[in-house]
Amino acid sequence: MKFQEKIKDSAENKNSNIVLALDLPPQEPTLLLKKALRIIETVQHYICAVKINRHLTLPLGLFDGVKKIIEATYSYGLPMIMDCKINDIGATNQVIAQYYFKAGFDAITANPFIGWEQGLKPVFETAKNYEKGVILLVYMSHKAACEGYGQILKDENGKLTPQYVIFAKKALKWKADGAVVGATYPEKIREIYQILNEKTPIYSPGVGAQGGKLQEAIKAGASFIIVGRTITLSKNPAETAKKLRDLAREAKNRVNTTAL
Amino acid sequence: MKFQEKIKDSAENKNSNIVLALDLPPQEPTLLLKKALRIIETVQHYICAVKINRHLTLPLGLFDGVKKIIEATYSYGLPMIMDCKINDIGATNQVIAQYYFKAGFDAITANPFIGWEQGLKPVFETAKNYEKGVILLVYMSHKAACEGYGQILKDENGKLTPQYVIFAKKALKWKADGAVVGATYPEKIREIYQILNEKTPIYSPGVGAQGGKLQEAIKAGASFIIVGRTITLSKNPAETAKKLRDLAREAKNRVNTTAL
Repeated sequence: MKFQEKIKDSAENKNSNIVLALDLPPQEPTLLLKKALRIIETVQHYICAVKINRHLTLPLGLFDGVKKIIEATYSYGLPMIMDCKINDIGATNQVIAQYYFKAGFDAITANPFIGWEQGLKPVFETAKNYEKGVILLVYMSHKAACEGYGQILKDENGKLTPQYVIFAKKALKWKADGAVVGATYPEKIREIYQILNEKTPIYSPGVGAQGGKLQEAIKAGASFIIVGRTITLSKNPAETAKKLRDLAREAKNRVNTTAL
Repeated sequence: MKFQEKIKDSAENKNSNIVLALDLPPQEPTLLLKKALRIIETVQHYICAVKINRHLTLPLGLFDGVKKIIEATYSYGLPMIMDCKINDIGATNQVIAQYYFKAGFDAITANPFIGWEQGLKPVFETAKNYEKGVILLVYMSHKAACEGYGQILKDENGKLTPQYVIFAKKALKWKADGAVVGATYPEKIREIYQILNEKTPIYSPGVGAQGGKLQEAIKAGASFIIVGRTITLSKNPAETAKKLRDLAREAKNRVNTTAL
């Protein structure tokens, strides 16, 4: 099954569009792994996917501790995303993508800034071969996102255009499986949603710890909400995840009702 | 000792400005580790540093196989660079940088596209705390480099400027320890060298397999030449490394003579 269908199915099954970002602060590897597995087990009913990052791959090892996390995640019927933000030359990108897909990830994130030829082309080809997904960064959630993603440049027709508009168009052209747009910038989600429409679902991180608002992000067009520290650092991760899931559901229903 | 001094010392000791990029194709992890260690041992006299990438960290594990590679490299008096091309949000970048520095790397590479606040600021701060280096990508070696690194944008004064010029200026402003500029684009090395001068040394990858010419890169202003597949896939890596070292030395001498 293709990644887009897989996560859509999972969102329907779990009745949730919350992606858990399992970004845990450094601690002793055995404890880190235990904590990661415990959080997934606790919140599994309220999320539709798990996304991990170098917080776990670097200390635990991709084919060691991370393998256990992938196995556990699958046993709960949840797809896994590796947020590796690929941005190397093509030959290296291909090796990176192969390792992550072989390890069991369903999708990886990539930075469109690297371009197509000898850049992301081998990543999309590898993803196709493995029947996996590629999610592109279109506008990130941090303060300096304006510095790169927000800069104004000359497009191929010589017209001044924001970088994120160029990236959103590339997401369509390259048939990306998703686009990352920070919940901290709902106006960017709205603008990017106008370009992508329903063809490329928007994944929105930055809710909570980074100041983004879940309901605004959904209202602006986000399909999936990525939540990390708000859940993982919460005293009761399951309760927090459930609350966020319910909030997101409400917001989604309101959007659907307005659209009718 | 600071990274810039460390690699300068190493280049003088080894009488070489060749950085070995140990980017080995996927194979069984035990054999991969053996091969990596064997190549470093063979070419140690002809190089000034070793750079590794996800080709090794993903299959071998940062605190497992890679640790052995770092130990071996140090035993030969060579500094180690992790080519991780950091481009995440600040909180994540900081965790990534900490893990690599704790593992023993002397410098990491980062993508200036991510910007400063909540982007690379925590990376430079972490590097300072650990007395390590940060090398910025200014113009990469692949075909599509023009798509991102070569795009024309409005700078802070509203003037149309190439992306790599903006990045080179950031390398100076942020006090980066190096700038990556592809040997496949000697004209870009020349232009970027005019901005950086001797303050930020240029590291130039893309020699050989990617078509870049070592001597042209040095003539244009590169301080260090990064060579991967030309050495690692060679029948006699030591001989090839020695040849490249000598070629680079000649080119450097010619530059110095012309400058007198």
